Amino acid sequence: MLPDGCVRAPETRYLSEPRGRWDGLAGAVALPRNTDDVATILRACHTARVAVVPYGGGTGLVGGQITPDGPAPLLLSLERMTAIRAVHPSENVLVAEAGAILTDVQSAAEANGRLFPLSLASEGSARIGGLLATNAGGVNVLRYGNARDLVLGLEAVMPDGSIWHGLKRLRKDNTGYDLRHLLLGSEGTLGVITAASLRLFPRNQSEGAAMLVVTSPKAALDLLALAQEQLSGMISGFELIGGMGLAFLAETMPQVRQPFARAPDWMVLLDLGAPAGVDLATLMERVLTDAMEHGLVTDGLIAQNAAQRAEFWRLRESIPEANRHIGAVSSHDISLPLSELPGFIDRAGPELARIGDFRINCFGHLGDGNLHYNVFPVPGRSRADHEHQRNAIKTCVHDLVHQMGGSVSAEHGIGRLKVADLERYGDPVKLAAMRAIKTALDPAGIMNPGAVLRRV
Amino acid sequence: MLPDGCVRAPETRYLSEPRGRWDGLAGAVALPRNTDDVATILRACHTARVAVVPYGGGTGLVGGQITPDGPAPLLLSLERMTAIRAVHPSENVLVAEAGAILTDVQSAAEANGRLFPLSLASEGSARIGGLLATNAGGVNVLRYGNARDLVLGLEAVMPDGSIWHGLKRLRKDNTGYDLRHLLLGSEGTLGVITAASLRLFPRNQSEGAAMLVVTSPKAALDLLALAQEQLSGMISGFELIGGMGLAFLAETMPQVRQPFARAPDWMVLLDLGAPAGVDLATLMERVLTDAMEHGLVTDGLIAQNAAQRAEFWRLRESIPEANRHIGAVSSHDISLPLSELPGFIDRAGPELARIGDFRINCFGHLGDGNLHYNVFPVPGRSRADHEHQRNAIKTCVHDLVHQMGGSVSAEHGIGRLKVADLERYGDPVKLAAMRAIKTALDPAGIMNPGAVLRRV
Repeated sequence: MLPDGCVRAPETRYLSEPRGRWDGLAGAVALPRNTDDVATILRACHTARVAVVPYGGGTGLVGGQITPDGPAPLLLSLERMTAIRAVHPSENVLVAEAGAILTDVQSAAEANGRLFPLSLASEGSARIGGLLATNAGGVNVLRYGNARDLVLGLEAVMPDGSIWHGLKRLRKDNTGYDLRHLLLGSEGTLGVITAASLRLFPRNQSEGAAMLVVTSPKAALDLLALAQEQLSGMISGFELIGGMGLAFLAETMPQVRQPFARAPDWMVLLDLGAPAGVDLATLMERVLTDAMEHGLVTDGLIAQNAAQRAEFWRLRESIPEANRHIGAVSSHDISLPLSELPGFIDRAGPELARIGDFRINCFGHLGDGNLHYNVFPVPGRSRADHEHQRNAIKTCVHDLVHQMGGSVSAEHGIGRLKVADLERYGDPVKLAAMRAIKTALDPAGIMNPGAVLRRV
Repeated sequence: MLPDGCVRAPETRYLSEPRGRWDGLAGAVALPRNTDDVATILRACHTARVAVVPYGGGTGLVGGQITPDGPAPLLLSLERMTAIRAVHPSENVLVAEAGAILTDVQSAAEANGRLFPLSLASEGSARIGGLLATNAGGVNVLRYGNARDLVLGLEAVMPDGSIWHGLKRLRKDNTGYDLRHLLLGSEGTLGVITAASLRLFPRNQSEGAAMLVVTSPKAALDLLALAQEQLSGMISGFELIGGMGLAFLAETMPQVRQPFARAPDWMVLLDLGAPAGVDLATLMERVLTDAMEHGLVTDGLIAQNAAQRAEFWRLRESIPEANRHIGAVSSHDISLPLSELPGFIDRAGPELARIGDFRINCFGHLGDGNLHYNVFPVPGRSRADHEHQRNAIKTCVHDLVHQMGGSVSAEHGIGRLKVADLERYGDPVKLAAMRAIKTALDPAGIMNPGAVLRRV
């Protein structure tokens, strides 16, 4: 039903994922040119009962894009549907197709004097459809929300091949169940997002950043509260960096300049943005003075220009790379109620020490309560030495997170990696509702089977 | 199964609604004391196939709380469940039961030095459960979002009586389908919200407001764009007021002081809030100067103190009351893509004139693209004179809104009043998905039957 070239044998790049945990299977890869092609493909797969795995940039970290076993599915890659269909600067709206790469969407917004604030490490290859289907997070959530909060409308193809024309550009629209939020974060298990109308924001005319040494994670949270009171609405990022992360950087990436002569145990990257006419430097100095008076901050550097601000962020963004050089035994994308965060950090270390000797690099989006809590071997040992403990480590961390009211997947989603976690920690009533919804919208069970919910 | 007094004959106040369009039926009213009572009631109704209509403050304007025909349902009033279960100021979170009245939630936030920004005319009697079930809007949506955007977690009882314990306090939680957003805005047709964890914000330390005469609705939108560029994140409200609204005020409420000696055709109420240390007066003056230079604004008043700001808002909030004094033939809660708004206003008047002679009061939350577009008789005629034209008027307005990509229910919801509108204007694929979800989660069809979706 499609012209030549729209269905091909899958190249190997479609069959691996960033962490190399699984090899994938696929009978073919379909490359639709437009939404009608997607509908044609889904109608055919629905009739033939062929599984379909929507494929974005392939950057997901939980295996949502990979089928390691079972019947080989059809991969549906949106990579040809990359158009920015429209930009409405006066409405602060941009309409992008699902295959558009995040940096291209950011650039299109910028070319129109606007900001699209979704920003994360894989932005150069992650595609909008996948980012929305997984409700991606990133560094600007504190100010602008998660990916789902940036979406005004969706166009999507449902599992039976019908097209939902929901590309509204409205800030208020109270007409029935919010199908948009149901598809956002459903990881391709309920339909295929083909385009989205996205919220844009005014660009910040003045920006500022500071690296601040804090006395503890609790002090970091008190600093956040103080900063929110004094800088409400201007805080774009509030990132926690641990001493272990700085040590990993020094060890594996000595070219990255360390901000402080003696690496602190804990520091915060505070990032600000505001319209012209707001004197950010003065506001930031007042926060710092107050924070030092309250004993929250003991040392700090304020970026004097855009280059220094970029350097601060480079340091923050080098930490995941340093982690890869060291080689984690186990990585955890967790969130906690803000006030529980310091207690979690205090308790998790000793609990893990009962399993073995580890180094812990705890960093992340503190303003969102989102930690990347990663566990590494001590020097002289390798991750292979701890392979047998990986499950125990994971369970230890996740059990504690769950006990303290947190989430075992803050921003990465469930994919295939965390299906068992969702079963263990998820609310049973919510799970039952999810299964009922899945069956109602995808009765043939063709959409990304095995992701989020176990195959039935 | 419940103690005495938990189920009573329904008083008449439960059987009417603010606009007096319908009289309601109810076999009884149930007054649960807690979530377990709600579960007991729903389990029993599910088994006995008795319809349940969740009842909040009874302030809804689309009849979602009223059953005018069919078998008399059980009204489930949450009015005894009014506890503020917890306030976490350091997390900017408050946990309220569904029966809490909005002003009580606002006060609890304020007592903790925080802001709960949901604010609307009925806030003194509307209850949180109903506000969330209908995804209420109001005057602060431009800055803080709709009701759904203020919710971190929900506790709810599903149609079979099972309890979803989803009261999370997390900013990031990517663990499966977003059941929260599905219940929010579902108007009691998929379950009963019993409690919610709500987002709080820092209180504004400095506030400001201006009444600005604009040359046209298009000029008002250009002013909005200019203000967003210069005051991004500090604009709390951007309300359009039409000359007809001022005339209605002068006619029916002469005690309300008019801001300008000669009533303008169009004016805007611009409301600002910021942390201490931000010089709002200077920022606002720069916006005004620029707007006057661009010919967008011809006159203006800047509030010199809190009392003047309150007076500006009193004027805005008196307009719906003046409308009631005059007596609308037809009221419309519509939204449009921002750039389509001026065109809509230009076109709707002449189209209505083909039906008859009317006065139009067009006002509302311009920053959200949300107009209250209300149609009144000319002097000497009454609404009764136009009763036979009401449907034609409604269809004329709604058809045009739909044609221009707008919504026929911006913030009031569907209820029973707009079921046929949803069928006429709603996307058929979305409607099919809604019906499938309704059947999946409420197979016995007991939850608020006839609201949002027609009874099957």
